[in-house]
Amino acid sequence: MSRIDNRKNDEIRKFEYTYDFQTHPIASILVSFGGTRVLCSVSMEERVPGWMKAQGVKGGWVTASYCMLPSATHTRFGREVKRGKESGRTMEIQRLIGRSLRAVVDLKKLDGITLNVDCDVIDADGGTRCASITGASAALKLALSRIVERGLISENPFKEAVAAISIGIFDGEAKLDLCYEEDSCADVDMNIVMTESGKFIEIQGTAEERAFDFAQLTQMVNFAEKGISQIFKQLNK
Amino acid sequence: MSRIDNRKNDEIRKFEYTYDFQTHPIASILVSFGGTRVLCSVSMEERVPGWMKAQGVKGGWVTASYCMLPSATHTRFGREVKRGKESGRTMEIQRLIGRSLRAVVDLKKLDGITLNVDCDVIDADGGTRCASITGASAALKLALSRIVERGLISENPFKEAVAAISIGIFDGEAKLDLCYEEDSCADVDMNIVMTESGKFIEIQGTAEERAFDFAQLTQMVNFAEKGISQIFKQLNK
Amino acid sequence: MSRIDNRKNDEIRKFEYTYDFQTHPIASILVSFGGTRVLCSVSMEERVPGWMKAQGVKGGWVTASYCMLPSATHTRFGREVKRGKESGRTMEIQRLIGRSLRAVVDLKKLDGITLNVDCDVIDADGGTRCASITGASAALKLALSRIVERGLISENPFKEAVAAISIGIFDGEAKLDLCYEEDSCADVDMNIVMTESGKFIEIQGTAEERAFDFAQLTQMVNFAEKGISQIFKQLNK
Amino acid sequence: MSRIDNRKNDEIRKFEYTYDFQTHPIASILVSFGGTRVLCSVSMEERVPGWMKAQGVKGGWVTASYCMLPSATHTRFGREVKRGKESGRTMEIQRLIGRSLRAVVDLKKLDGITLNVDCDVIDADGGTRCASITGASAALKLALSRIVERGLISENPFKEAVAAISIGIFDGEAKLDLCYEEDSCADVDMNIVMTESGKFIEIQGTAEERAFDFAQLTQMVNFAEKGISQIFKQLNK
Amino acid sequence: MSRIDNRKNDEIRKFEYTYDFQTHPIASILVSFGGTRVLCSVSMEERVPGWMKAQGVKGGWVTASYCMLPSATHTRFGREVKRGKESGRTMEIQRLIGRSLRAVVDLKKLDGITLNVDCDVIDADGGTRCASITGASAALKLALSRIVERGLISENPFKEAVAAISIGIFDGEAKLDLCYEEDSCADVDMNIVMTESGKFIEIQGTAEERAFDFAQLTQMVNFAEKGISQIFKQLNK
Amino acid sequence: MSRIDNRKNDEIRKFEYTYDFQTHPIASILVSFGGTRVLCSVSMEERVPGWMKAQGVKGGWVTASYCMLPSATHTRFGREVKRGKESGRTMEIQRLIGRSLRAVVDLKKLDGITLNVDCDVIDADGGTRCASITGASAALKLALSRIVERGLISENPFKEAVAAISIGIFDGEAKLDLCYEEDSCADVDMNIVMTESGKFIEIQGTAEERAFDFAQLTQMVNFAEKGISQIFKQLNK
Repeated sequence: MSRIDNRKNDEIRKFEYTYDFQTHPIASILVSFGGTRVLCSVSMEERVPGWMKAQGVKGGWVTASYCMLPSATHTRFGREVKRGKESGRTMEIQRLIGRSLRAVVDLKKLDGITLNVDCDVIDADGGTRCASITGASAALKLALSRIVERGLISENPFKEAVAAISIGIFDGEAKLDLCYEEDSCADVDMNIVMTESGKFIEIQGTAEERAFDFAQLTQMVNFAEKGISQIFKQLNK
Repeated sequence: MSRIDNRKNDEIRKFEYTYDFQTHPIASILVSFGGTRVLCSVSMEERVPGWMKAQGVKGGWVTASYCMLPSATHTRFGREVKRGKESGRTMEIQRLIGRSLRAVVDLKKLDGITLNVDCDVIDADGGTRCASITGASAALKLALSRIVERGLISENPFKEAVAAISIGIFDGEAKLDLCYEEDSCADVDMNIVMTESGKFIEIQGTAEERAFDFAQLTQMVNFAEKGISQIFKQLNK
Repeated sequence: MSRIDNRKNDEIRKFEYTYDFQTHPIASILVSFGGTRVLCSVSMEERVPGWMKAQGVKGGWVTASYCMLPSATHTRFGREVKRGKESGRTMEIQRLIGRSLRAVVDLKKLDGITLNVDCDVIDADGGTRCASITGASAALKLALSRIVERGLISENPFKEAVAAISIGIFDGEAKLDLCYEEDSCADVDMNIVMTESGKFIEIQGTAEERAFDFAQLTQMVNFAEKGISQIFKQLNK
Repeated sequence: MSRIDNRKNDEIRKFEYTYDFQTHPIASILVSFGGTRVLCSVSMEERVPGWMKAQGVKGGWVTASYCMLPSATHTRFGREVKRGKESGRTMEIQRLIGRSLRAVVDLKKLDGITLNVDCDVIDADGGTRCASITGASAALKLALSRIVERGLISENPFKEAVAAISIGIFDGEAKLDLCYEEDSCADVDMNIVMTESGKFIEIQGTAEERAFDFAQLTQMVNFAEKGISQIFKQLNK
Repeated sequence: MSRIDNRKNDEIRKFEYTYDFQTHPIASILVSFGGTRVLCSVSMEERVPGWMKAQGVKGGWVTASYCMLPSATHTRFGREVKRGKESGRTMEIQRLIGRSLRAVVDLKKLDGITLNVDCDVIDADGGTRCASITGASAALKLALSRIVERGLISENPFKEAVAAISIGIFDGEAKLDLCYEEDSCADVDMNIVMTESGKFIEIQGTAEERAFDFAQLTQMVNFAEKGISQIFKQLNK
Repeated sequence: MSRIDNRKNDEIRKFEYTYDFQTHPIASILVSFGGTRVLCSVSMEERVPGWMKAQGVKGGWVTASYCMLPSATHTRFGREVKRGKESGRTMEIQRLIGRSLRAVVDLKKLDGITLNVDCDVIDADGGTRCASITGASAALKLALSRIVERGLISENPFKEAVAAISIGIFDGEAKLDLCYEEDSCADVDMNIVMTESGKFIEIQGTAEERAFDFAQLTQMVNFAEKGISQIFKQLNK
């Protein structure tokens, strides 16, 4: 049973990226997973969130935001500001990106600094949260090396890179890196975030139509490991 | 290395429940996982959401909401209505409860009916989302049997019950059903939703402090299977 | 003309209460007026509202919030957070509860402390604001005695307890402590808050269908005095 | 103990009014109670609120809104729209005005019509809600007579006029129609709405500093009756 | 082709004003341009906006707000607070008023003071923003002279007065100071703000139906100069 | 007195564009005015706004939205959705873009169709509203030709293209197409929208520091005519 774009079940889409797509941020990257393109940028503020001050927490902070451009989807995606608040989906995704990045940054070394990582989806074709995490980690890595170079912090707080990939089950089989058309008819939808050293940061699997068993979980995890190691190979070329 | 309440690593807290704690809902249950208590109630409306009508989707709908009572936590939990919107955490949890319930209800058989499942946390001591899912499923099962009895729908759309449990890693070991004190210092935090027949509906694992490997993932999944089967045993007594 | 539950016109419903229903608050009480049940809890913060600091007002503060659980009413009561703000009714009620409590607390003795009194309606069958005030006063009395015991303040600022009861006119006669069914067809709806020493804190009477005269006002006030003294008798047992 | 403006305890302030102060509304009145001036206007829509249609309620509707101009108070009163919502005080007042008006209009005769009564406070010097109710009733009476004249409805739904007055207790004595300076130091604050025929529509009394007894309640009610009858005398000249 | 009120194309409507229409503000003016009436008031706060403190900007601030009373328009104008935010039109107008006023005030001389200029439209018949700017400038001039008299600032920061007028093109001809009926069918709508010394502060011209050329632009500007000089003549009488 | 980038006073920055930068919209263009880059996209819905239905207005609608990416500016531009509403500046700009486009579209020929034109600023270096209008017009022209090709409407409603340019006065001289650094110290800031046939759609000039006279107005208009004709030359190559 072949896939819509003739990929094998454990094959990722074409992964590409352009650094410094924008002028003002410390670092930015335009990353593409097949037809999905996300612009990830890192900005810096020399202050920390109010709650850190209030609670006397030392160090700095990394936070992420995620936004779908209205023109990124097949049917126009209405701007969330018009309804006065972010949707649950947007909040979930930006919390996930933020947690994934903070898991690989030693916040204590970021003294007095907040890094804002903004992910704006230019074109959406499935897997936008995975592309965002992968691009955000790459932009953050570059930004932190520049911040160290500029002497703003003395020691690089970046522990290792992370990347993410989606896996789904449909037609009874696990498939790696779903495009939109595959994603919308999958029975199970899973997103996995891993470090460059091959450990798990996040596993989020949802049975949308049909519950899954341990064997299927294992296969999805194996596909993710394979896909993520290919992404890291490309990023490190 | 013993646990704060002397449980074994794979031991759940005392699980208890009271049906029909409230007067007006079709079904309600006050469920407790140790010191965590959640009131789960099912209300019925004989209409479907606007988007179902707009898109011409047949059948009915099941939706969930989640709310922490301000007095449920050690430090008072400010009402979200005062800030004008739900937090990302609340939205994430109610989306999770809703998805878990819809995975075991045949919505096509719920013709023209919306079921609202409300989870209000009376006392919070870790695992409130797992207690909510478990209680919500039990209340929904009872509600649907009553709706069928009353002749409002002809065939029971409930496929099977779900339950959920949390697992964490701290002090280097997996532990089942974390209480608040354990949860707040865990390296990894996982929530697993399973059906009564032993399949997975949701797996959500987050490395808060330390990434985890496949062996740890497997052990957490095994603990969850054990804990959830005990909960079902109690529910079916 | 008998009442729906065969009570006499000046007879209150069964009044019951359970202290310390919850784990975390300083004091909580689950209070019931017949079929109406409200959970009233007191939490403490060691800081005062911004306006007190800004205006240099000495002492502490007592504030109240009120919330109907969605499952507390016959037809589900949609959560107000979903619409982004509290309704006028909710705001009116929590302002009334707060004023009633502040009238019997010497705020100057509460130095630097804010007490939040949360009233969450578990089951609604008429008179939820009166049950809230009565329960809130009892919980506050208990909380303040504990705060004094713990040495956080030196002198107990609680002057005396308050309680509240509703009275209505329907079928041309005054009736005490209306249940929902009576309330919804009353011509006049009155809520009276009194101190244990028999003085008035609040009188709010509304002619919904028919204006009332001084004789009717007097009778309603007399009924309230009778009902409230019975409530105090029970609370002091 | 004389009053700030040398009035007797049971004496109202100068009551004046100008009809048709504005161009567009069906009727408008600029009403003054001493230094308090409120512009009350009635606009008409030939449709009813959504809930009336949804519930199949026949007839029409009367609703009120209340707004303090920012320049009406000694210290500028920030526009509520800037904070995104009305305050509890504003909501309480406009609910009170609306209830008072609907109590004297036979809504069934207002078939398919909604009347909006807008009260905008030009100058505030105590008693703005009482001035609003009194002016709103007078504007509504005039508007309804014009609507009947224009043949839009066949029978005048206006039953009788209402007026309102404040009474307070300070320096141990009841005083009628408090100005701002008196109001801000009163122990008890009461607002009474009465019909032209001398019956009560609303009684709202609050002990802000000191609880009051039945004798005081009676005296405040007597003062209100006296003040309101003088207002009606002026309005009917 | 004559105008609806028989004015010549370059003739303004009757311009009138009453100073100190309100009690509390430092200065207020009720200004009318024909059937348009706006109440403009100046209030003072002895503090500056947060951003001035944060950025270390010296001096004071002048800000404006604009509000249409619901009863000011032919069809009732719903209060914006009910929708939770100001419309784009309101924001545009109050930004325009604020900019126009700040252009003629030396903010450095307003040390530590914020002046709020509130424009509330009592009756709307076209040109409300121009009437607001003209009235706001007059009220501000008076307020600043009083602030200097009271010794709150040593030097008057008011440079010169501004006034504004609308011009439109319809039936192929430029016309000055449009009333509502003219405004609603104009092809081009222009608002011009000028100083007393005859220079431009703002020019805003919009082709609503038909683009315009340089000759038309010149004629509209000439009409504005003429109208504004007449307004200043009246203000200085 | 030379400009920061050595341009002559009446010289525009490098104007470039790429069509179909995105996958899903009917047409998109990435347009740059020097260092300013804006992505303009056109999406189509086969329905009209509610107010058109309600008022029985025939035809279709064109609407615009404008958004600054957080990473587009030197100091990060916080997402407006986080504050729950668009700023006055954003609303002003999107109203301006929408008006400019509707002025050159015959809405009656767009039967039953709404076109959403989204302008997202990728890099901001002054003149983002002018770049947005220019790009939006080009994208709309392309989109409408495609809509006609696809047979969705029979007659092309596009009348002619528009473009916009900024002009400022600083150092006493008019300068065309200001970059951010110039813009932030200009005495006068003007934006002019013109049609391809050389007529005016919008003129918005603001004296931020110093009022201007008719001679300066004329010079700014002349510069605009020159700059806009160059832009059209490039667009038509």
